[in-house]
Amino acid sequence: MISTKLTELLGIDHPVVSAPMGSVSGARLATAVTQAGGLGLVGVSYGDAAFIDEHVAQATKGGGVWGVGCVMFTFDERPGLWDKVLGYAPPVIALSFGDEDQVRRYVASAAESGAHVVVQVHDTEQAVVAVQAGASVLVAQGAEAGGHHKIRATLPLVPAVLDATQGAVPVVAAGGFADGRGLAAALALGADGVMMGTRFAVTEESLATSGFKNTLVSAAATDTVNTRAFDVVRGIPWDEVYQARSVSNDFTREWTGRDAELAARRSEIEPAWTAAVARDDTGQRALFAGEVLDLVTDVRPAASVVHDTVAEAEDILRRLAGRVRP
Amino acid sequence: MISTKLTELLGIDHPVVSAPMGSVSGARLATAVTQAGGLGLVGVSYGDAAFIDEHVAQATKGGGVWGVGCVMFTFDERPGLWDKVLGYAPPVIALSFGDEDQVRRYVASAAESGAHVVVQVHDTEQAVVAVQAGASVLVAQGAEAGGHHKIRATLPLVPAVLDATQGAVPVVAAGGFADGRGLAAALALGADGVMMGTRFAVTEESLATSGFKNTLVSAAATDTVNTRAFDVVRGIPWDEVYQARSVSNDFTREWTGRDAELAARRSEIEPAWTAAVARDDTGQRALFAGEVLDLVTDVRPAASVVHDTVAEAEDILRRLAGRVRP
Ligand SMILES: Cc1cc2nc3c(=O)[nH]c(=O)nc-3n(C[C@H](O)[C@H](O)[C@H](O)COP(=O)(O)O)c2cc1C
Ligand SMILES: Cc1cc2nc3c(=O)[nH]c(=O)nc-3n(C[C@H](O)[C@H](O)[C@H](O)COP(=O)(O)O)c2cc1C
Repeated sequence: MISTKLTELLGIDHPVVSAPMGSVSGARLATAVTQAGGLGLVGVSYGDAAFIDEHVAQATKGGGVWGVGCVMFTFDERPGLWDKVLGYAPPVIALSFGDEDQVRRYVASAAESGAHVVVQVHDTEQAVVAVQAGASVLVAQGAEAGGHHKIRATLPLVPAVLDATQGAVPVVAAGGFADGRGLAAALALGADGVMMGTRFAVTEESLATSGFKNTLVSAAATDTVNTRAFDVVRGIPWDEVYQARSVSNDFTREWTGRDAELAARRSEIEPAWTAAVARDDTGQRALFAGEVLDLVTDVRPAASVVHDTVAEAEDILRRLAGRVRP
Repeated sequence: MISTKLTELLGIDHPVVSAPMGSVSGARLATAVTQAGGLGLVGVSYGDAAFIDEHVAQATKGGGVWGVGCVMFTFDERPGLWDKVLGYAPPVIALSFGDEDQVRRYVASAAESGAHVVVQVHDTEQAVVAVQAGASVLVAQGAEAGGHHKIRATLPLVPAVLDATQGAVPVVAAGGFADGRGLAAALALGADGVMMGTRFAVTEESLATSGFKNTLVSAAATDTVNTRAFDVVRGIPWDEVYQARSVSNDFTREWTGRDAELAARRSEIEPAWTAAVARDDTGQRALFAGEVLDLVTDVRPAASVVHDTVAEAEDILRRLAGRVRP
């Protein structure tokens, strides 16, 4: 076991968090990670009543320290859903992608519910805002991440966030982590744990389709692309500072960089695209994944990801201390 | 002291390398780093006879384990310069930015001179080529670096390069490192040391102008931009896969993304630009710097960078081992 400010604050065994990935992190994945001693998060994401009633309800039954992850800017559009989430009293609420006003409002409301509030940030300014708003934990996420992210790389971002917030709250590093080398490196940077998305998306318990998992297992970092095409075709009003990293496919090759045209032709294109996604057509569907893909070469049980990551990090930390000569 | 495969191979005290930065890493900086126990590299860069005769000659007098860094693709254009470099018998030759054929030829020639040959790579394919060509050390450089780089972030690149080359040679991590947290993280990832560019550019011994150093001290990561404008205005035939990270200024705001137009109007624009650079006009000159800028807040002696980095990393590695509970 590796103890950090995060494990102490939350009362968990391991400083390993599974990311709240929409359509991927269901109750099964979150529960598996929590039961393995990490922090499992259900990806409520943009918010969907049926998903919440199924997966968040199920996660409460798993017990332990689990949580939900919500995308703030979309919750403002869906009245009632936030209260539905709070109704399940998740011990941890992770918030991502909101402006200053949204961060203040959702952090305050989540904290009032008694939850530990985790806020994902992408630069030092957002980190300072989140701490001022009352976040209990920050996730500092870099641009090598799968899914949506901003422009900064994780490695220099994590210490910059720590310096900007003067260690006020534990910082979890995200974007580019898949194994014990990554966890050990995150701790060396001063982080108190890692959040892994891509790695947990490719586990047995993830809700991702077999087409998605198989594509990610075969793909490498250099196959990924930053795109807004999936947001535009879905009509989700993402701020343009955020792009999403996906394995490139026919859809990204056709539409990346042509946002305005895709938006204009959405009513024509979206139905066929949605139908293709329903068929698990990997040439069309979003394949969110990060630059860690080189390190993700198998579909495994989530518990083995947690345990192998921690065991490898423990081994590295012990060995490295032995390299220091007086 | 922290011993690694790199320190053992080269016979140096500390796994810290100063990057071979054109117009920045002169003999004074390289010698200071070498005398502090790291590996100091003179930035021969694109190659210039007068610079070589001044700085490489001077570095030989400093003694110890020092080296030169050459940009391969430009040496092909400048017959005689390579032999001039070899004539000074540098103990280490660092090679960067060449195609497969150039990597093979320059590695072979450098190795024949008896030097340790360091090759900078930006993806796993280049890493495999460099090892096959006979490199004795790889530098795995990520896109958060200052100066020229390719698209991959350092954090997931370093373990991917190690896996792809199966630990055949020591790997030095570059791009995003500025302090002991970074060195400890690099070692945790499995690297055998760090190369730092931006951090050493902002030292007392660096050849960089005061305008350059002061701008970098004030700037943050979010002030940097990837650009080809400086290469185009200088007429240096860089492969388009490489961009250069610089602090943004009037010149990058005017010309980034307008390569073809700048190339077409070069004879008109270049003289005034060159004159502005000669005046140290920070609105016009290249200000190559990486996303570590948040961590670079002072101009310091290079030796203190080496010593503080190592002392901080030692402290982190000792403390982290104490966090591992049986
Ligand atoms: C398939 C996938 C879906 C994701 N969906 C979400 C999401 O719905 N909400 C969110 O805040 N982050 C989402 N992310 C980003 C993760 O929260 C996390 O920041 C990221 O995965 C970390 O980088 P990594 O992929 O390198 O581990 C997603 C990531 C992936 C890979
Ligand atoms: C001012 C500056 C000039 C550089 N010039 C060169 C160069 O001439 N040749 C080269 O191979 N790399 C050059 N680089 C890249 C460095 O070798 C190194 O890969 C990089 O600085 C590492 O990232 P960091 O800036 O985050 O430390 C330069 C970097 C900087 C900051």
